[in-house]
Amino acid sequence: MAAFARRKAQRLARPDLSRKRALDARAAELARLLNAHERFCTTSSCDGRVLLAVGYRDTGIPAWDTDGGGIQKKNCTWLLVTHDPCAKGDVMTALEKCTGDVVFKFEPFVLHVLCRELQDAQLLHSVAVDSGFRNSGITVGRGGKITMAVRSTHCLEVPLSRKGRLMVSDEYIEFLVHVANQKMEENIRRIERFHKGLELALEAAVPTDTLAPEGPEKSRSVYVHRRKRQTIREQADPSGELEPQDDTESSLDLFAEIMI
Amino acid sequence: MAAFARRKAQRLARPDLSRKRALDARAAELARLLNAHERFCTTSSCDGRVLLAVGYRDTGIPAWDTDGGGIQKKNCTWLLVTHDPCAKGDVMTALEKCTGDVVFKFEPFVLHVLCRELQDAQLLHSVAVDSGFRNSGITVGRGGKITMAVRSTHCLEVPLSRKGRLMVSDEYIEFLVHVANQKMEENIRRIERFHKGLELALEAAVPTDTLAPEGPEKSRSVYVHRRKRQTIREQADPSGELEPQDDTESSLDLFAEIMI
Repeated sequence: MAAFARRKAQRLARPDLSRKRALDARAAELARLLNAHERFCTTSSCDGRVLLAVGYRDTGIPAWDTDGGGIQKKNCTWLLVTHDPCAKGDVMTALEKCTGDVVFKFEPFVLHVLCRELQDAQLLHSVAVDSGFRNSGITVGRGGKITMAVRSTHCLEVPLSRKGRLMVSDEYIEFLVHVANQKMEENIRRIERFHKGLELALEAAVPTDTLAPEGPEKSRSVYVHRRKRQTIREQADPSGELEPQDDTESSLDLFAEIMI
Repeated sequence: MAAFARRKAQRLARPDLSRKRALDARAAELARLLNAHERFCTTSSCDGRVLLAVGYRDTGIPAWDTDGGGIQKKNCTWLLVTHDPCAKGDVMTALEKCTGDVVFKFEPFVLHVLCRELQDAQLLHSVAVDSGFRNSGITVGRGGKITMAVRSTHCLEVPLSRKGRLMVSDEYIEFLVHVANQKMEENIRRIERFHKGLELALEAAVPTDTLAPEGPEKSRSVYVHRRKRQTIREQADPSGELEPQDDTESSLDLFAEIMI
């Protein structure tokens, strides 16, 4: 536990290496909420964005090259990036600058959180999946580092130009911007659902380090989680639009079984 | 352990509910490899595919509707699906049938594997990330069910028509098919890398249930994993094209630390 606290302090003291040198607004709120708990430490995030990137070589992977104008970061060129609703005019202006292969992308919310124990990661994972972030998952790294990644299935990736020649019409770009902005709105709804669900879950969760590892206390803590879970689900997703998936089960109620 | 064997037997006895009623060829080979080990049980998979789907309602989510022709499954309509390289003619023919909003998608390889213990999931996760499947992650579900999901960052999602009207040119569709086929080739390379890496990893891994939980035996098993790991990485990714990522670390060498 002391090791986690040390790692957290070191991590939060590191300079922000992102291009913005700052957290996006919604991610910043979530980071504050999580970092206020000793069991969590956020390490990277993005609220979601629309971007125009120069990419696609023969491999079919966006192997970001440095053709054309735009901001460069390592070997990746972005002609445009916005975390707010996108305007067609901005896309058209950015396209004028470029001589390479341009791809229009919507990238949804992403958040990485270091967790002290596996059960902490499970708590976050459960809330994330219930909020619509179905591609979320846990990574257990070298040295026992446990990271929970919040990821969405939500994407848009559209090749627009080839060797500097625009392959689509103005009208299509307008349509695309409209679709991307709708995805951005849905992305924000999911972040809000996640934030709300997380507040409830963190409030409901009994810190297990205050409980004895064996005996009746342990059973009680599991019971508390079980009872609270339904409430969290209901409040976090009042629309009930998310179908349960076989491979992304929630997990608040397995603490006793997993802690070998 | 007996519980896992029971669950695996039940799972493998279930009817295949997929549209094809069969596994894709590459996924089938992987399933055979994994299911031959008592610690793993594959539950769902797709080799990767190109599809034309009818979707996009006001939410911006592909809320697959049932406008137009095509195969229907629940409330999702596919006008075309292929696991092989795609032909422009097939896309054009499929588009003729449709009166709704059509989206062209490339979906990469996906595999879900039930794992007996957390360390088994970590082994798979490590090989998956090293093979290029960077969005892979572990889920710990209700009742302690541990699932490893192999997922790629590789995507393509392009809206093509709006209310039945095609928004792009023939030439653009030809370009798009070319990009999708390149992605499909890269996807196959990653699956092959994963398969090879997995064979090596499974061969190298010492089944921990044959080892004592404490004492010198345990230290030796960790050492075996550490030594083998470099070999697996080198053989699985000879090109060295994958950069290490802070949030997707490999994890063969942390067994001693994570098994609390």
